[in-house]
Amino acid sequence: MSLDSGISLKQIALTIGARLEGDPEKKIIGINTLRSASSQEISFIARDSFAEQLSETKSGALICSEDYSDKFSGNKLIGEDPYLLYAKCTKLFKTKLIREKGEVSKMAYIGDNTSISKTASISSFVTISDGVEIHDDVIIGSGVFIGPGSVVRKGTLIYPNVTVYDSVFIGSDCVIHSGAVLGSDGLGFAKEEDNWVKIEHLGKVLIGDNVEIGSNTSIDRGSVGDTQIEDDVKIDNLVHLAHNVFVGKGSAIAANSAIAGSSRIGRNCTMAGCSAIIDNVEVTDEVHITAMTLITKSIKEKGIYSSGTPFMKNSEWKRNAVSFKRLHNFITKEK
Amino acid sequence: MSLDSGISLKQIALTIGARLEGDPEKKIIGINTLRSASSQEISFIARDSFAEQLSETKSGALICSEDYSDKFSGNKLIGEDPYLLYAKCTKLFKTKLIREKGEVSKMAYIGDNTSISKTASISSFVTISDGVEIHDDVIIGSGVFIGPGSVVRKGTLIYPNVTVYDSVFIGSDCVIHSGAVLGSDGLGFAKEEDNWVKIEHLGKVLIGDNVEIGSNTSIDRGSVGDTQIEDDVKIDNLVHLAHNVFVGKGSAIAANSAIAGSSRIGRNCTMAGCSAIIDNVEVTDEVHITAMTLITKSIKEKGIYSSGTPFMKNSEWKRNAVSFKRLHNFITKEK
Amino acid sequence: MSLDSGISLKQIALTIGARLEGDPEKKIIGINTLRSASSQEISFIARDSFAEQLSETKSGALICSEDYSDKFSGNKLIGEDPYLLYAKCTKLFKTKLIREKGEVSKMAYIGDNTSISKTASISSFVTISDGVEIHDDVIIGSGVFIGPGSVVRKGTLIYPNVTVYDSVFIGSDCVIHSGAVLGSDGLGFAKEEDNWVKIEHLGKVLIGDNVEIGSNTSIDRGSVGDTQIEDDVKIDNLVHLAHNVFVGKGSAIAANSAIAGSSRIGRNCTMAGCSAIIDNVEVTDEVHITAMTLITKSIKEKGIYSSGTPFMKNSEWKRNAVSFKRLHNFITKEK
Repeated sequence: MSLDSGISLKQIALTIGARLEGDPEKKIIGINTLRSASSQEISFIARDSFAEQLSETKSGALICSEDYSDKFSGNKLIGEDPYLLYAKCTKLFKTKLIREKGEVSKMAYIGDNTSISKTASISSFVTISDGVEIHDDVIIGSGVFIGPGSVVRKGTLIYPNVTVYDSVFIGSDCVIHSGAVLGSDGLGFAKEEDNWVKIEHLGKVLIGDNVEIGSNTSIDRGSVGDTQIEDDVKIDNLVHLAHNVFVGKGSAIAANSAIAGSSRIGRNCTMAGCSAIIDNVEVTDEVHITAMTLITKSIKEKGIYSSGTPFMKNSEWKRNAVSFKRLHNFITKEK
Repeated sequence: MSLDSGISLKQIALTIGARLEGDPEKKIIGINTLRSASSQEISFIARDSFAEQLSETKSGALICSEDYSDKFSGNKLIGEDPYLLYAKCTKLFKTKLIREKGEVSKMAYIGDNTSISKTASISSFVTISDGVEIHDDVIIGSGVFIGPGSVVRKGTLIYPNVTVYDSVFIGSDCVIHSGAVLGSDGLGFAKEEDNWVKIEHLGKVLIGDNVEIGSNTSIDRGSVGDTQIEDDVKIDNLVHLAHNVFVGKGSAIAANSAIAGSSRIGRNCTMAGCSAIIDNVEVTDEVHITAMTLITKSIKEKGIYSSGTPFMKNSEWKRNAVSFKRLHNFITKEK
Repeated sequence: MSLDSGISLKQIALTIGARLEGDPEKKIIGINTLRSASSQEISFIARDSFAEQLSETKSGALICSEDYSDKFSGNKLIGEDPYLLYAKCTKLFKTKLIREKGEVSKMAYIGDNTSISKTASISSFVTISDGVEIHDDVIIGSGVFIGPGSVVRKGTLIYPNVTVYDSVFIGSDCVIHSGAVLGSDGLGFAKEEDNWVKIEHLGKVLIGDNVEIGSNTSIDRGSVGDTQIEDDVKIDNLVHLAHNVFVGKGSAIAANSAIAGSSRIGRNCTMAGCSAIIDNVEVTDEVHITAMTLITKSIKEKGIYSSGTPFMKNSEWKRNAVSFKRLHNFITKEK
């Protein structure tokens, strides 16, 4: 199955679990949008808003639901959830960043008492500190630092220039993007008269299986006790998770969001971009927080939560914003 | 023209396009603020609020508009836009981080089938992956990773510890600051029952000419189709641009801002710090978004847009914030 | 004093300045939470909300105030400020990331005319540029870049993959976490017709003593004049400090916050997470800014300041948010 000569529609249908209408021998070399696809590429439609592009696309095949089966005359891969079929299809066309298995670069630094699987791949300028365990099929990109006693389990991919401090435990089949930092100290200080006394962070970071961590995301270690990310959590870029945070299984956190110290979010939650949770708060399962919302108290009931104001033209906004300053006085006066 | 002995005012005036009033042979060794400048340094005034400092400055020369020509008795470089003259003047006093041209460090890793210009400079601990093109006069700082098949065009400067994934195309005369990550995957997953299925990101990142990208900024690659940054775009630190984002020519995005998946902003837009745009939104040309504003819908008319509330003393704010919770009921009751 | 065999309570009491009630020879091997501590670990209680856990803890000793002396029957280390005692206690149990003193890795790159103390430790893949000074007991983690002419003073710890540009002056006993970037250019451009003209950044970054800087934080150099962080400032992860910012002694800035160009905050201020200050603003001493608050004007009076709205269920929020758009009209109509 070489990407150069393409993959047959028959093969794609079989792999992603779709029903094929069209030419089973047709070769596909990639995926593209309806607008840009060539006749050797496949496209997908998962929203009606793109339907008008169907008449003009040059796409060699379409992933779609039954609803579209008579709206598109070309080759079709049909299933109930075309977005899911598309997700599965992407895997067929992904070429890996680093391909060699079992290669440890001569330009890497390997400490004492490490355990590195023969099927792991370590790139140039990587530091593997004393006592580290690297399990089977792990791929570590160039410039990565893995601190003393940390563990990376089977099949995990760590992109270049990631920093993993000591005592960080990363599960299997995770993806850690470049610039992510796992295990830095939290902002923990006690006041002694006018001075800050640093609280040394003695806890660990525990990361489950199938976790994805975006680029330039920071996850602090626990101060006392651990920071914990359960299985199947998906974290975007530039996210801050403070010391002793807990993120429940299957939750997803979009970019530039932050969870402050010792707060916990449950399972299957979502935080949209630029949202935040203050410290020592507990959020139950299946809570969805909209973009740029600040959560300041525990949430015990599942649902969607929001804060902020709508955006407006600045001139109009200014008038309402000034009125907001008088809101309490106005409402109490009127009573 | 050596910086050690200084640059004459005559030479500076000629280079930046200003009219000189004063001593053409006076030597200048640097730029400083009105308050801190020595008699060998040059200052500028671009706002009236600094005018009171003119009587006390020791500055050896002043970049100013005609308005100040009789308010300052020393040497003057006069022009219509003193801020622009100052910008041009800074170039005379900038010494480069890395100066050697045409040097490839012996401590760099160079892959197969690369094309590296003889005038490019590659620092220590850099990884240039297979099939990469590095064009003339490119400078690559230490610890940088350039992924397979990526291209860096003429004169671009990449500071240390930047990560460039595969299939990222960077234009000419760009500046990429440390910690920036170009080409990471977006947060793209489809649900299959209770599990997230990863959408492999097959798109590219396309960056135009004269683009500046700030430190620790993350730009994701397209999922299907590309992420695109047009010419002359200026991006600050810690900015997130998600998969398939488009930023039009000449737009500027300040720190800690974010644009979510597939959203587009037009030409000559500005986003102030900590602002954000949700996914699948289209913002037209010449739109200016104020700090910490969230854009939740497409904007078809140019202008300034804002959201949020003014800041207040916390005690006062609390009363108004509580009133906000009753706002709808209050307004409808009063009708 | 070996961690393997533990530290006696007598020794701990002496070191942290607590009064011991209990067995002076009892050995302690670590610190843990009340819930998780073993009989060889010590715990602390600093908030009444944890008091109910006292009856069930297996902890080998408790750091507490006099109030708890008869509520817990085990070994106790008693003092007025148990949180401060705990902070001091953490130092006894911290093992360093990198321990060797006076070692310069053979896999580091050292430039010309550097001054590196014999007690400093330089890890693999570090670049020390020309003219850099590294003072006594400094520890530099792998992959760090230190630019030309920069200085790192006594006892400072720089974690892996930090980038320090040229002319950055770091005081003594600082901690810089991974991914931090010190000295990048600010977003400074002047418009010439339709083009941006870059303002080269000629200023320095000056960092005092006992400063901590979080992971993936960006601190820009001054454009003209310097960016300055005074002694004892504590900065969290993913914080942006723009060109020419000034942060006064003892202030603390939590994660994802930002201060825009040339703004100044005084001494002993705190900025909670995701807060921001726009450019050219001056904030006096002892100002506390709550989470996700935007400061748009100078603050001359100490106190707590806030902006934003409370969070609500999305359905309820939507009604109030829509009402906000009509607020000005409503209030003026009612007059």
